[in-house]
Amino acid sequence: MPKQILLNAFSMNCVGHQSNGLWRHPRDRSREYTSARHWQELARTLERGLFDGIFLADVTGVYDVYEGSPDAALRAATQIPANDPFSIIPTMSAVTEHLGFGVTGSIPYEPPYAFARRISTLDHLTEGRIAWNVVTGYLDSAARGVGKAVQTEHDTRYEIAAEYMEVVYGLWEGSWEDDAVLVDREAGVFADPSKVHGVNHEGEYFQLKAIHLCEPSPQRSPVIFQAGSSPKGQAFAAAHAECVFIGASSHAATAAHVRGLREQAVAAGRRAEDLKIFAMMAVVVAETDAAAQEKFGDYQSYGLLEGGLALTSGWRGVDLSQFDLDEAPGDVRGNAIQGSGRATESPTVREIAENLVVGGGANVIIGSPSTVADELAGWMEATDIDGFNLAYTVLPECYEEFVELVVPELQARGIYKTGYAEGTLRRKLFGAGDRLPASHPADGYRQR
Amino acid sequence: MPKQILLNAFSMNCVGHQSNGLWRHPRDRSREYTSARHWQELARTLERGLFDGIFLADVTGVYDVYEGSPDAALRAATQIPANDPFSIIPTMSAVTEHLGFGVTGSIPYEPPYAFARRISTLDHLTEGRIAWNVVTGYLDSAARGVGKAVQTEHDTRYEIAAEYMEVVYGLWEGSWEDDAVLVDREAGVFADPSKVHGVNHEGEYFQLKAIHLCEPSPQRSPVIFQAGSSPKGQAFAAAHAECVFIGASSHAATAAHVRGLREQAVAAGRRAEDLKIFAMMAVVVAETDAAAQEKFGDYQSYGLLEGGLALTSGWRGVDLSQFDLDEAPGDVRGNAIQGSGRATESPTVREIAENLVVGGGANVIIGSPSTVADELAGWMEATDIDGFNLAYTVLPECYEEFVELVVPELQARGIYKTGYAEGTLRRKLFGAGDRLPASHPADGYRQR
Repeated sequence: MPKQILLNAFSMNCVGHQSNGLWRHPRDRSREYTSARHWQELARTLERGLFDGIFLADVTGVYDVYEGSPDAALRAATQIPANDPFSIIPTMSAVTEHLGFGVTGSIPYEPPYAFARRISTLDHLTEGRIAWNVVTGYLDSAARGVGKAVQTEHDTRYEIAAEYMEVVYGLWEGSWEDDAVLVDREAGVFADPSKVHGVNHEGEYFQLKAIHLCEPSPQRSPVIFQAGSSPKGQAFAAAHAECVFIGASSHAATAAHVRGLREQAVAAGRRAEDLKIFAMMAVVVAETDAAAQEKFGDYQSYGLLEGGLALTSGWRGVDLSQFDLDEAPGDVRGNAIQGSGRATESPTVREIAENLVVGGGANVIIGSPSTVADELAGWMEATDIDGFNLAYTVLPECYEEFVELVVPELQARGIYKTGYAEGTLRRKLFGAGDRLPASHPADGYRQR
Repeated sequence: MPKQILLNAFSMNCVGHQSNGLWRHPRDRSREYTSARHWQELARTLERGLFDGIFLADVTGVYDVYEGSPDAALRAATQIPANDPFSIIPTMSAVTEHLGFGVTGSIPYEPPYAFARRISTLDHLTEGRIAWNVVTGYLDSAARGVGKAVQTEHDTRYEIAAEYMEVVYGLWEGSWEDDAVLVDREAGVFADPSKVHGVNHEGEYFQLKAIHLCEPSPQRSPVIFQAGSSPKGQAFAAAHAECVFIGASSHAATAAHVRGLREQAVAAGRRAEDLKIFAMMAVVVAETDAAAQEKFGDYQSYGLLEGGLALTSGWRGVDLSQFDLDEAPGDVRGNAIQGSGRATESPTVREIAENLVVGGGANVIIGSPSTVADELAGWMEATDIDGFNLAYTVLPECYEEFVELVVPELQARGIYKTGYAEGTLRRKLFGAGDRLPASHPADGYRQR
């Protein structure tokens, strides 16, 4: 059987995640993000299309690098307003059975003790469908939300993250033994205290002496997602991540990126196949190639360039308003965290912003179901990725059309599942157990 | 029309909240707390009974004062394991339309910027059904979860809480003006930046310079709950709370407590009726008084005394294992936060623990529907309270029976609603607007 494509929907609890301005499109309903019904309909659509998961990005801050103010982001609804991603998971899990939920949790903004509990609770409620996208934070505006003038320096953030992982692995994997919970009604013993252990962590950034508040959930540690592309970010992914999200500018560059990630995982004592690698992609599909191109042009016409400039200025940490729209700023990067997926030689500021309309910088595949399937299959074959992280364009029609038009085409080619596997998200993704494998560093925190 | 009784179910995302050991009862299903279905069935039952809300207690720590160890609490499942209360709200709101959700948020365990966002998100998702029970924390074990050896001193905790309120009121009430969100598709302006303001707080305990990440939710500030009974706690309630939860040991003591709270609210510039006061109560009902007494005896026989001792040792901050079971320890209190509701002169340790089986120290009303209604009406008349906070005994039958047997009796007497009012939780409770009234201190944070 050929390799099966894994699929995540790439979303955020906001109006404009990456496709700047498309909330203006007459058919777009992303403005309804505050309502439960919006998320439930989306979740049902994704589950109908056998998506593996929905990946909820998050930023706890405002894009205010551009023109030194949040005004452009507010006008364009570029990731502001932005609601909490955790709260919509129980909303969606209430109407689905298999869809996984990847949630972005930013390490600087919640202490590990409470965070570990929140994740365990969701893993219980969803019966093992939770993944955590580990983020170290990158906006100064977010740092100001917790009383710091600027964010912690990049490499230090990864040191903090590594220590945070020690604490949460201890809580998830080491605190309660598998057979600690007895529920012995006769003897009046719910849990055997000799099998519940305190985590005693005296680190540089975290101190904690506590037992985990939650009994073991189906997966214990959530499926670990990671998206950082810096050398430190890649090393972190190689050590910890089970799913890695990458940009994808060309087959060759992506293949090299994937090879590098797998080699680093092996060097870290894991197996190459322990990483499932998802390339960010956007798809505009219609019955014919010509109709799809027309649709793309229609979508593009609703774009808001200033939203794109706010976004990319925040990502790069450089205020692009200092350049003319038709000037090429070169590869200016401050504390860049995320590159554009589309390769253009020395683009102008205008081209950079236009690139952040449909798909928000993701590679955009435009065409008939057959063309889209060809392209997706081509990426799989050429790069050794495992699947795609599909950014939304006009919501929800982009996912509805993908499910109606592209999924059957992929299934007909034998490169996409025709039903869900049973069990937890980890079991579905890796075809093995519910828990992290012995090759993962979390294994070291288990009681022997 | 006589005063209408308000009702909250008093619960917690755990097995044994207050009624120690009743998970052992053959009909009890509290062990299913990890599942979504459990909470959805409970929410449906409460909404069928026109309950105003479910109040979710929370403790981010372990009861380890008794015998200096968490062992007794673990054996008895006394508030451990305990899952996150926030996560089950979207689970329950997905299947209800009117039920309110009061959630305990402990100030030491989440920074105000992220917390304010979580609450706003839930207020959006539930269409204005959120209340926040403000807690300042009381267990040393919780403090150790965030790296401190002991908790912050009691009075200082209230200073910190007062400053925390300044920050969150600023975010909820002051950051976005009512007409900031335009959604002007034509002009490409989602929000008017001139109507979105940064909150700039430079305080002793919190520093923040940020705009609120969320657009205005139906209630903006959640309905504010408070349960502290110390002088500082009462002063805090008088200043901030809209709903106050109190123990209720006797008519006379409760009437005095209620009078004192209302007087303090008036002294703080608010109106006596701005406080809705709920007395903690447990009810064991059956067709006849005799059958109810028999049921109470049956329930009581499943109690676990050591769970009660763990609980009360934690509340008092005093290890009761130093006394004989039949010794009266007197009024020993360390950092006590919560007293028993039932008045007994100089009880022994055994009596204290037995009192923490059915209803967990709440006054227990045992009888036929008519007897229970007489008692509830008697409390309302004698004490000027507004309603009850009903602790669970055997779950879910205690609420199912209350809804089936007691609610119709109260309705027949004209002292309980026969349908929900429309609108947000605040509008339902106070019959006025969706937002905090001008007499509340949060009003000072609004843009003029």
